[in-house]
Amino acid sequence: MYRQRGSASAGVAQPRQYVRANRQRFLTELKEFIRIPSVSSHPKHAPDVKRCAEWLANHLTQIGLENVRVVTTSRHPIVYADSLHAPARPTVLVYGHYDVQPAEPLNEWRAPPFAPTVSGQNLYGRGACDDKGQLFAHVKALEFYLRLARRLPVNVKCLFEGEEEIGSPNLKPFVARHRRELACDTIVMSDTRMLGVDRPAITYALRGALSLELEVTNAPSDLHSGNYGGALHNPLQALCEIVGKLHGGDGRILVPGFYDHVRCWAREERDYMARFGPPDDEILHHAGAARGWGERGFTLYERTTIRPALNVTGITGGHQGVGGKSIVPARAAAKIDIRLVPDQEPQVIERLFRAHLCHLTPSTVRSEVRTFFRTKPALVSRKHPAMRAAFAAYRRGFAVPPVFVRSGGSIPVVNEFQELLGAPTMLMGFALPDDRIHAPNEKFHIETCIAFLHEVASRPELSQVLT
Amino acid sequence: MYRQRGSASAGVAQPRQYVRANRQRFLTELKEFIRIPSVSSHPKHAPDVKRCAEWLANHLTQIGLENVRVVTTSRHPIVYADSLHAPARPTVLVYGHYDVQPAEPLNEWRAPPFAPTVSGQNLYGRGACDDKGQLFAHVKALEFYLRLARRLPVNVKCLFEGEEEIGSPNLKPFVARHRRELACDTIVMSDTRMLGVDRPAITYALRGALSLELEVTNAPSDLHSGNYGGALHNPLQALCEIVGKLHGGDGRILVPGFYDHVRCWAREERDYMARFGPPDDEILHHAGAARGWGERGFTLYERTTIRPALNVTGITGGHQGVGGKSIVPARAAAKIDIRLVPDQEPQVIERLFRAHLCHLTPSTVRSEVRTFFRTKPALVSRKHPAMRAAFAAYRRGFAVPPVFVRSGGSIPVVNEFQELLGAPTMLMGFALPDDRIHAPNEKFHIETCIAFLHEVASRPELSQVLT
Repeated sequence: MYRQRGSASAGVAQPRQYVRANRQRFLTELKEFIRIPSVSSHPKHAPDVKRCAEWLANHLTQIGLENVRVVTTSRHPIVYADSLHAPARPTVLVYGHYDVQPAEPLNEWRAPPFAPTVSGQNLYGRGACDDKGQLFAHVKALEFYLRLARRLPVNVKCLFEGEEEIGSPNLKPFVARHRRELACDTIVMSDTRMLGVDRPAITYALRGALSLELEVTNAPSDLHSGNYGGALHNPLQALCEIVGKLHGGDGRILVPGFYDHVRCWAREERDYMARFGPPDDEILHHAGAARGWGERGFTLYERTTIRPALNVTGITGGHQGVGGKSIVPARAAAKIDIRLVPDQEPQVIERLFRAHLCHLTPSTVRSEVRTFFRTKPALVSRKHPAMRAAFAAYRRGFAVPPVFVRSGGSIPVVNEFQELLGAPTMLMGFALPDDRIHAPNEKFHIETCIAFLHEVASRPELSQVLT
Repeated sequence: MYRQRGSASAGVAQPRQYVRANRQRFLTELKEFIRIPSVSSHPKHAPDVKRCAEWLANHLTQIGLENVRVVTTSRHPIVYADSLHAPARPTVLVYGHYDVQPAEPLNEWRAPPFAPTVSGQNLYGRGACDDKGQLFAHVKALEFYLRLARRLPVNVKCLFEGEEEIGSPNLKPFVARHRRELACDTIVMSDTRMLGVDRPAITYALRGALSLELEVTNAPSDLHSGNYGGALHNPLQALCEIVGKLHGGDGRILVPGFYDHVRCWAREERDYMARFGPPDDEILHHAGAARGWGERGFTLYERTTIRPALNVTGITGGHQGVGGKSIVPARAAAKIDIRLVPDQEPQVIERLFRAHLCHLTPSTVRSEVRTFFRTKPALVSRKHPAMRAAFAAYRRGFAVPPVFVRSGGSIPVVNEFQELLGAPTMLMGFALPDDRIHAPNEKFHIETCIAFLHEVASRPELSQVLT
């Protein structure tokens, strides 16, 4: 379809030219997409998530995709579209998510999170990078082909969900029910990171996740801390005592059996990681932190990828407002995020964790654990042919070979796609390390986006190797 | 002034009759008083606190007190009034506070906290008991004399502040500046508890207080817990590790030097406490808690009165909303309330506590301590003549002698009055143990209030012994 490739479609412009010519429109459309506060975790935003799905479906229709559908689920809709006019060519499933994390703390955003603004080379707004911006790059790559050549070089199925940030509860049942309709040779998604502007990376490993909440209670209501302080076990204190015992001084998680199935990697793999992964000082620089912390004997990159982690993501209890309040609070709750690695099984770890919390809870208070979601860790072989295609595509666009990296994050569907569709997922992410995903001032590097659009648009062979 | 006492004021009704005849009006007025949300700790309620002061001043004028003033301070006003027409009689300073604690958590109130409602024998509403209801009882006792005898049997000075719940920052300077105008023989206040409906108590000891906030920080903003989890010391985790080390398994506070000046009481005093104080099961019953906790070798009553306590009154950090959020929070803060006993000095304890927190803070995070306020513990001799008068007054009203009890709470002014005015404070409280002071469903036992009104109104000898 390109001149270089001897395509019949005479007059079709170069992808780079197309992107340059339409850049302002792309940006306007993306801002419209970001402006919809599709926060999946909070019920009050459910109408926004629905509106966002409809906006996206409408956009897919406009660019020329077919069978566009907004599929309702028990919570947030799935958007599907396809274009299947390349018989004998491979089928690529493009996956992305249009939901976003909550934008709080709002006072730390320089501009309102859902009023996207361009500043320098950056677009600021919740979802600009994770994942609306990256999803949108694929949509624009499809548009390039559909507008200029009227058809795609491969068969494409788009599957965009609105529940990724809450653990994709409805995607797996949907994929399981529609295995035949979703059959594909490979899946491509962009929801991971590069190492820097000129340092492309393909993610080949993801951590699993186990999201829980621990609640500690005692008296049925708050009590006066003068009258009762010293005679009752304060639930916030008990919560701190429990949480404070979850890590050893060596940074290891003290849940018995927790490390039993953690895979030990060969020297060769760890050497590869040391050579191509980010060094400690770079990770600290991007985090803005002065000092690292964690499990001894591992680099920071290893601690966030091949080693599990346990994070307290929020604690609520007692007086949250301004000033003091003299109470023994009735309850305290901690949200806990555990990241898992091969070959830890989320359900096994959940059982060990629950048993250990039972053991840590003194008889002077009560505790309860609620599970939000579980995600298995995922691995894609660096030697898979689709990986080789992705590698070549990146090298052509960036003039440097990409490195294969591990991500400490979790994308539930990667394992589910492997299990249900039998296809590997290409994690061609182009977020930048300082994009502050999930944090205030998340931004999206427009130049990176354009380079990626160019790459996806100019590489039909990405799929062709899969015949 | 009574018939029994051969007063010249013929036709003056009995106090009990007066209260009975005016009961409905008293209740209407008290509800009006409670309806004003005079929460002193939150800046947004400052206009309400001011409005409450004005309402109270207006009410004092209406009942016939003189020199009524609303004195502005750097935060919330002080209300003053007097009636000084009993030369050669003693002077009683009536102290109370018209500010209240925050009403949160609002969803646990059966009725809105600032829309007082009567249910059975109880009046529900924030401040119904602490301290608007109790303050109001004194006002109505004064009204009884002023309406029916046109003058008070003693000289009375009223001093009502709006900052008790935030540590009375402006009262001490005010009292220091007006020592001469506030000179008195004794102070009476009702902001403490009885042991039950028919079990009156006079409080002779209060704990001191030290209110602080500990903040732990690391990176400048929240980070993705997938990407950074395991490589940085999570501030919420570090906070839990620090707080979790503040108590030993034996319930003792592990700050070095903390117990150095805690007074050891003689067997005799502890026997008195065991005989007249509430037993463990009663304290647990009122708290609604299944099991006690705390320092070994002491009863629950002792743990909350003659022993110090350290309570976490609130923790804020990370995601507070519904569901999960994948972050390593940038900061975490704990509000800490320390109760002190003779002969602990708040400033010395603050120094020890700050040093210990420095010591407990690992080099992988930063911590900071802010002090909200400090209050010294207070003691009034059970043998003081004003105490004997109070004792006699109670015995007459309740037909049972009151017991002398210690309170675990803190009332900053008691020590300050002793230091600045050289007068002891009579803590004639009539809150009930299940009034849930500072908690949702705070209520006020109307019958107790009426009995107390009767007692105060019918006992001019309460002051006369002080000539």
